[in-house]
Amino acid sequence: MSAPTLDTSVYLERVRRVQAAMDEHDVDAALISVGHDLPYLTGYTAMPLERLTMLVVPRDGDASLLIPGLEAARVAEQPGVFDLVPWGETDDPTDIAARLAGGARRIAIGDQMWARFLVEMLPRLPGVEFTRAVEVVGALRRTKDQAEIEALAEAGAAVDLIAGELQRGEIPLVGRTEAEVSDHLGRRIIEEGHEKVNFAIVAAGENASSPHHHAGDRVIRDNEIVLCDFGGTMNGYCSDTTRCVFTGEIAADVAEAYAVLHEAQAAGVAAATVGTPCEDVDRATRRVIADAGYGEFFIHRTGHGIGLEEHEDPYIVEGNDLPLDVGHAFSIEPGIYVPGKWGMRLEDIAVATVDGPVLLNNSDHDLISV
Amino acid sequence: MSAPTLDTSVYLERVRRVQAAMDEHDVDAALISVGHDLPYLTGYTAMPLERLTMLVVPRDGDASLLIPGLEAARVAEQPGVFDLVPWGETDDPTDIAARLAGGARRIAIGDQMWARFLVEMLPRLPGVEFTRAVEVVGALRRTKDQAEIEALAEAGAAVDLIAGELQRGEIPLVGRTEAEVSDHLGRRIIEEGHEKVNFAIVAAGENASSPHHHAGDRVIRDNEIVLCDFGGTMNGYCSDTTRCVFTGEIAADVAEAYAVLHEAQAAGVAAATVGTPCEDVDRATRRVIADAGYGEFFIHRTGHGIGLEEHEDPYIVEGNDLPLDVGHAFSIEPGIYVPGKWGMRLEDIAVATVDGPVLLNNSDHDLISV
Repeated sequence: MSAPTLDTSVYLERVRRVQAAMDEHDVDAALISVGHDLPYLTGYTAMPLERLTMLVVPRDGDASLLIPGLEAARVAEQPGVFDLVPWGETDDPTDIAARLAGGARRIAIGDQMWARFLVEMLPRLPGVEFTRAVEVVGALRRTKDQAEIEALAEAGAAVDLIAGELQRGEIPLVGRTEAEVSDHLGRRIIEEGHEKVNFAIVAAGENASSPHHHAGDRVIRDNEIVLCDFGGTMNGYCSDTTRCVFTGEIAADVAEAYAVLHEAQAAGVAAATVGTPCEDVDRATRRVIADAGYGEFFIHRTGHGIGLEEHEDPYIVEGNDLPLDVGHAFSIEPGIYVPGKWGMRLEDIAVATVDGPVLLNNSDHDLISV
Repeated sequence: MSAPTLDTSVYLERVRRVQAAMDEHDVDAALISVGHDLPYLTGYTAMPLERLTMLVVPRDGDASLLIPGLEAARVAEQPGVFDLVPWGETDDPTDIAARLAGGARRIAIGDQMWARFLVEMLPRLPGVEFTRAVEVVGALRRTKDQAEIEALAEAGAAVDLIAGELQRGEIPLVGRTEAEVSDHLGRRIIEEGHEKVNFAIVAAGENASSPHHHAGDRVIRDNEIVLCDFGGTMNGYCSDTTRCVFTGEIAADVAEAYAVLHEAQAAGVAAATVGTPCEDVDRATRRVIADAGYGEFFIHRTGHGIGLEEHEDPYIVEGNDLPLDVGHAFSIEPGIYVPGKWGMRLEDIAVATVDGPVLLNNSDHDLISV
């Protein structure tokens, strides 16, 4: 259910680098609760519940891990990384957190912390300026080390196997509901070694024109496109790929659009070199689709970073001028969605390297008739 | 994966009542994002992702549902409940939200909103006082109507079946790991009609002394206690029950403590009458355990409300003087945990009614030797 516990030295180094970033960005304290920054920095995954778990990282000195007393036994000690501060059932943990952060003028807050805890702390931290913790943790997390890239590659290879089954017609489609096929994909995701299914979008025909369609009772028919976008978490790291297949002889309008999509996706991959701003990768896919006259039907960004989270920095979107760097891992997934008719998307995870982009998904990129 | 969609009139009435509560509590706007208030008020369950979904409820007038454009097609229209406000991939949704809430002096924030969105809105809403949305939605949500109680009862009956299997020795324990038994419980939770497993704690022997133990590789042996605390979501509503069994002849110290636990739990149930403050129910269980000399080993509150969420208002804890009211549903789950030796907990869901507390869990309350 969570990232593997690493050697204490890894967490010590990560916390040290966060503190260096805090110094650079003039952040006095970072408050990290549920979400993925916490296991990244401590090896501990908090339960997303009403009892507060929070890592308080000061700019200098030792971090404290505030934890519900009855969960203290779940925490693997990481000597030197944090001091454990268990709180009791009648304590006020936000009060303790505010005291631990006392005197800070600028505080970074973990993205996925429940807002209730920030609401409770606001009156206790008057005059404090708040910023997102991504400011001090983001650069670290988006630059994957070798072990992280290997974990992403392993998860990617697992979903590629499943994509291959889909493309060879080994996953029955016609006559089944989207939900049944989604369950099938979910089972296969687990069987191939993921500890968790994150999503398994199955959208047939006109439903595929809704990019985040929720697989439902719609029965898949002959002669339509079926979009499958699926992924899970394996050893703490995520997979995510999208392939479309066609149940029957591919309709001419669909084939024509798919050729454009395929070219656009390849253009995005080719553009994803170290030093290229993220938005330029978005522009590369978008240009191909717009030039072919489908611009209005590409209604989302080109991609998102991936790692401990399915969606994380860096986002491949207009307005993000962050240059890609070695170790950035992200999806390239343009789509074309014609409302009421059909939709299509083609998605791989890519990693930026000194030798150019490397794909972690390598199943067939064609629209295959099954 | 979410609560069933109800008739539009139900959501209209709920939003109207939230607005009445806002008037009473001097709240000008309520901002509701991911979490369970949103489906409760709109029928729509937001994806917990970096793209903001937010219901903006003004004190008077129509609510707006701010939604990522590519998810707009997922939303079932509820005429009169909200206006749909899709935002585009290069828009700034927190800016739109702040504008929709413009002029508000006091704003209620949904508990589980990602803190990043509040951090982003803070500088755009200077001088605003923030409060938790539970102030205006909590009283509504904790008072279950007949349909909600029936849903909780149905989910409760399903986990009771599984508890019965555990108690009759139909779920093999000795020689299996905790994780294997946890998987078994999870499968049965789904087979019995839940759409989702929320947790399946299995803790053997000394591991049971950690109340939120994560089921692991520990093999279950003869002659020890096995604590199973499990539940899921069925038709949007949660189940949650805890039973312990003993693999072999029950050790004398365990039997003695369990008799105390059993009595304490029954005392908590008996105390859970309409008008009784929540903390008095906690005191009722705690007194029995303390009087028997185990007070230091009862290290958590007595219970939590349950409904769309596993843990929600009202909390059965010292310091909560809220009187129980008709339709409140909550767990009564005292425990005794002797570090390094064993732990035990006994948990039912109860509903407060004019005729006294009604239990939604009715499997055998004894510690059974299997």
